[in-house]
Amino acid sequence: MRTAIRTGALRSLPPPSTAPIHSSVNGLRNGVPRRFSVPPSSAIHSKSHDRSEALAPAARLPEAEPVPAAVPRKRVTIADIKERRAKAGRLIAPTAAYSDADMFKAPTTGKPKAKRWDHYLTKESILRAPCKLKQAAKHLKTPGLISLGGGLPCPEYFPISSLTLHVPTPPNFSEAATMEGGGEDITIGKYDAGFSQPSSSSSSSSAREEEPKSEYDLSIALNYAQASGSAQMTRFVTEHVELVGAAPPYADWRTCLTVGSTGALEQALRMLCDGAGRGDTLVTEEFSFSTALETAAPLGVGVVGVPMDAEGMIPAELDALLSSWDSPSSSPSSFSSSGMKMAKKGRGKKPHVLYTVPSGQNPTGATQSERRRRDIYEVARRHDLFIIEDEPYYYLQMPEHSGGLTDQPTPPQSVDEFLDGLIPTYTSMDVDGRVLRMDSFSKVVVPGSRLGWITASEQIVERFIRHAEVANQGPSGFSQAILHKLLDERWGHEGYLRWLMNLRVEYTKRRNAMAAACDEFLPKEVVSWNPPRAGMFQWLKVNHELHPQVSTKSILDIEEEIFNSCIAKGVLVARGSWFRAEQDVPPSGLYFRATFAAATPDNMREAIRRLGEAIRENYQL
Amino acid sequence: MRTAIRTGALRSLPPPSTAPIHSSVNGLRNGVPRRFSVPPSSAIHSKSHDRSEALAPAARLPEAEPVPAAVPRKRVTIADIKERRAKAGRLIAPTAAYSDADMFKAPTTGKPKAKRWDHYLTKESILRAPCKLKQAAKHLKTPGLISLGGGLPCPEYFPISSLTLHVPTPPNFSEAATMEGGGEDITIGKYDAGFSQPSSSSSSSSAREEEPKSEYDLSIALNYAQASGSAQMTRFVTEHVELVGAAPPYADWRTCLTVGSTGALEQALRMLCDGAGRGDTLVTEEFSFSTALETAAPLGVGVVGVPMDAEGMIPAELDALLSSWDSPSSSPSSFSSSGMKMAKKGRGKKPHVLYTVPSGQNPTGATQSERRRRDIYEVARRHDLFIIEDEPYYYLQMPEHSGGLTDQPTPPQSVDEFLDGLIPTYTSMDVDGRVLRMDSFSKVVVPGSRLGWITASEQIVERFIRHAEVANQGPSGFSQAILHKLLDERWGHEGYLRWLMNLRVEYTKRRNAMAAACDEFLPKEVVSWNPPRAGMFQWLKVNHELHPQVSTKSILDIEEEIFNSCIAKGVLVARGSWFRAEQDVPPSGLYFRATFAAATPDNMREAIRRLGEAIRENYQL
Repeated sequence: MRTAIRTGALRSLPPPSTAPIHSSVNGLRNGVPRRFSVPPSSAIHSKSHDRSEALAPAARLPEAEPVPAAVPRKRVTIADIKERRAKAGRLIAPTAAYSDADMFKAPTTGKPKAKRWDHYLTKESILRAPCKLKQAAKHLKTPGLISLGGGLPCPEYFPISSLTLHVPTPPNFSEAATMEGGGEDITIGKYDAGFSQPSSSSSSSSAREEEPKSEYDLSIALNYAQASGSAQMTRFVTEHVELVGAAPPYADWRTCLTVGSTGALEQALRMLCDGAGRGDTLVTEEFSFSTALETAAPLGVGVVGVPMDAEGMIPAELDALLSSWDSPSSSPSSFSSSGMKMAKKGRGKKPHVLYTVPSGQNPTGATQSERRRRDIYEVARRHDLFIIEDEPYYYLQMPEHSGGLTDQPTPPQSVDEFLDGLIPTYTSMDVDGRVLRMDSFSKVVVPGSRLGWITASEQIVERFIRHAEVANQGPSGFSQAILHKLLDERWGHEGYLRWLMNLRVEYTKRRNAMAAACDEFLPKEVVSWNPPRAGMFQWLKVNHELHPQVSTKSILDIEEEIFNSCIAKGVLVARGSWFRAEQDVPPSGLYFRATFAAATPDNMREAIRRLGEAIRENYQL
Repeated sequence: MRTAIRTGALRSLPPPSTAPIHSSVNGLRNGVPRRFSVPPSSAIHSKSHDRSEALAPAARLPEAEPVPAAVPRKRVTIADIKERRAKAGRLIAPTAAYSDADMFKAPTTGKPKAKRWDHYLTKESILRAPCKLKQAAKHLKTPGLISLGGGLPCPEYFPISSLTLHVPTPPNFSEAATMEGGGEDITIGKYDAGFSQPSSSSSSSSAREEEPKSEYDLSIALNYAQASGSAQMTRFVTEHVELVGAAPPYADWRTCLTVGSTGALEQALRMLCDGAGRGDTLVTEEFSFSTALETAAPLGVGVVGVPMDAEGMIPAELDALLSSWDSPSSSPSSFSSSGMKMAKKGRGKKPHVLYTVPSGQNPTGATQSERRRRDIYEVARRHDLFIIEDEPYYYLQMPEHSGGLTDQPTPPQSVDEFLDGLIPTYTSMDVDGRVLRMDSFSKVVVPGSRLGWITASEQIVERFIRHAEVANQGPSGFSQAILHKLLDERWGHEGYLRWLMNLRVEYTKRRNAMAAACDEFLPKEVVSWNPPRAGMFQWLKVNHELHPQVSTKSILDIEEEIFNSCIAKGVLVARGSWFRAEQDVPPSGLYFRATFAAATPDNMREAIRRLGEAIRENYQL
């Protein structure tokens, strides 16, 4: 994987800037360099310290003080949004209308602008020019203009004149209630917004004077659109970002719809990492989302993994890795907890992009605390790292598992309590504009929407859109129309937040059911785990050192045997080795990932029983 | 644009194969090298032969005989498909089921396999590994298996329990009839296919014994799926390809759903053209779809344009370009119709990929005849070119325009007559497997579906899918569910073909309306045009040599003046220069593109009147 395609470097780009390393944050830091020491015992997944606990308590950085919020987190309220919308009046955004988040944001007057990232953009990204045909759409605003410009089909030929959804009525989100006489029908018509008219309509003024039923309709959603997504959904996600306190503290932040975070990650990597030309390397957790690794590999982008503990990536390890990257002292003779590895890595260009899944990390389930995020952000500033924050499970944050089968989750008492309990996002602490956050509706509405969004600085979002124009032209109009109708128009922000609260309770129950099954069926003498605080995954560590054939079989062989035995017994789990950031280094531990998202609680229990049996047999217990 | 990023070449790949140049096609060709001479007068858009006719009659290649069909075109019939489906029984394809076109194709026993294209694949494409988590889906077939593998959300948490579409009932496709009491409602339920059950359903056998309502439902479509698309829609497009006679004559062809042809083209280019590493160059029409050019440019892929006539790209010009690519004789001193250009181009690697829009080409509206396609395919074989066939307007083929306002199109009398009248596709003559065809529902159903498909050899489709897994995970499930319900389940193949026939009549009317408006309002002394035989675009040539300031103003300046004057007068047209394949060469002619897809006939007439006025004023007529 890491035999990166590194041809003669394309150095027409300026060298990476040497940004001030210990710049003071809102005047509260004293500017004294803060040094993280590497606490080896906290690195529970690190290769040299194999322990039986899957997830140890969070590492404490001896010299580190809690970092105060750069800008105190201030959420926009639902009342603010309502007031802002009332003031703005009806949204006028017909077919292919241009829009951007600035049209919908709270004023950012007086805030500084984000840093620029020209020194990190790839040649490919720099070369992107705007789509000429989409740019021409700006003329459509000219009153009375008739367009013979873009090849946009006439909506008369769209064979769907309305779409009706049957959906739950808040606060009763239960599927059973919705399907058995409850719920309600909501309909999206072709000409609900009134910007264009059916072919048969007379041009009599009476028809036109009717109050439009909606701000969005099928004639708009099902035609070509801007690649950044419709104005209607851009407004919704921009306001949502503000409501949950994820808005960055700088002025020029933007959002942009995506075809989901999978595609968004590939676009981000192609924008920031040039494997073939510059020999760029990506930093991530030592176990990382396999599809992310599969996205980086063909681009020739090398990947290095940072040791993790119960709270995910360890800031001191990240700092140590980067600090010693170019240092001649990090040779194999100078041992540290990760000295060997670093010596090997100390070739090629120092990484400038960090990819991280802060909440319910895939595959380990680890969730970074606020403190952890601030520490990592601090290291990123020190080394001028750009951060890709991938947060599909952000809203599936859960209370700590207290154990026991009867562990029924207590839902938050109010939307405010729910929002207050969410761990702050990287974007919310991003004074520099060095974070690109990826959100997705896949895990919290439906994966099949292929719809998500990013939040980042104007420069980054603009380059991202230029790529989207040729990579996908933005998400499906069916998806946008349906999610807009349900989330914005019918439920509204509050209804959607209540949906997320409900979902969190459901996933908490599932997490608890899996924890109970693990307690009941897994052989604790060799398997260890911590129930996660977010997401969909239970990470299981199996102590390979206790395996009867440890001296003759490789970890990968044992993993494969257990995996095959699981299939034979009727349970599919994911192999830990699929997720190793550094696929060219032999594994140092034996892991499996089990999701509690898919199966019913009864099936989950049975599946874990089968898994336990497979491990016991393999270990001859 | 063509300042390609060409670093030290990555030559770990084998050199391009020297395929037999004049290989005999099904025994009918005599193997004698057939030489195309370059007919300069046919190259109506070529730089050195500027004429007032926008589109001259099709070029004739003096020595060329009609090339017999490599394999006689044989269409599968709707009855064949019905019989095949009845024989296969119910399609069992639950959540994330793997499928490929082979499951749905007519047998190809005895046919040869496609050639392999390893020598053209980019390093990036070669490095792609299958998505481990999607591969694991193969185990889901194991009876009784419980999956704790992929992080697929439980459909219980999908907040949409049904989707109802209001659609036209064939053969009455009119929007007015559908919206005013006609048409019908069709509904997609969450559990219509019966592979999974609602959370509240009792496990009593009675519920399970009900006949499932459908082979596809929201619980499948709205979850994660294979990136190649659902089995249900793969079956539909595969059968459709066979029905319209577009199936390739080799055995191992496949289809794969895409997020539309825009994204598919980027994926194809990244698979076949390595601008930065190998210095690859793409061949296309001298005027080409601007978004395609904008896709190639950031990849460092150079673009060369081939002169066109009324039937599009001229095979002899393509042959001459490639034959003289590496020849030292094509220096500026040896003039030919395109000698200057070729000398300039005769640097870098000889192109191995051709991108073409054969029907209703964007922007020129030119349509390649069957004979033209066979000639181009022959040149492609001679130079071992891989062909990307982009056919969004294929079904918008029209009868020739006979002139006059009362020119009402005669629709085909039957589905067979419609199909027989379609010009054969490149795939249908592709004995080698050197064609990747891109189809799209954008122009013929709705652009907002962001849904299309490709047809190509198994090797090419497999590499394409590997990229789709990380670039977008396939098209939206909403789009797939809706198009499947409408096209496959409700209308069926015949209904869909009748829809296309209806659409073709509608676009013919629009084409005629635009032609009439041009006749009425454009100053024929400077503007020339030919009504197109397919597509959505009227290409207008304005004779810049007759411009009063021709000696002092550049073509681009005149173009800009007319464009701005058009905006001021209330009409948006596309500037011809946006579409120039070679953006670094000064333009040699003045063109505008006008679409007849979007505006009403009345508005179209008014818009062309304004355009005529703008040109007259600018030309002081």
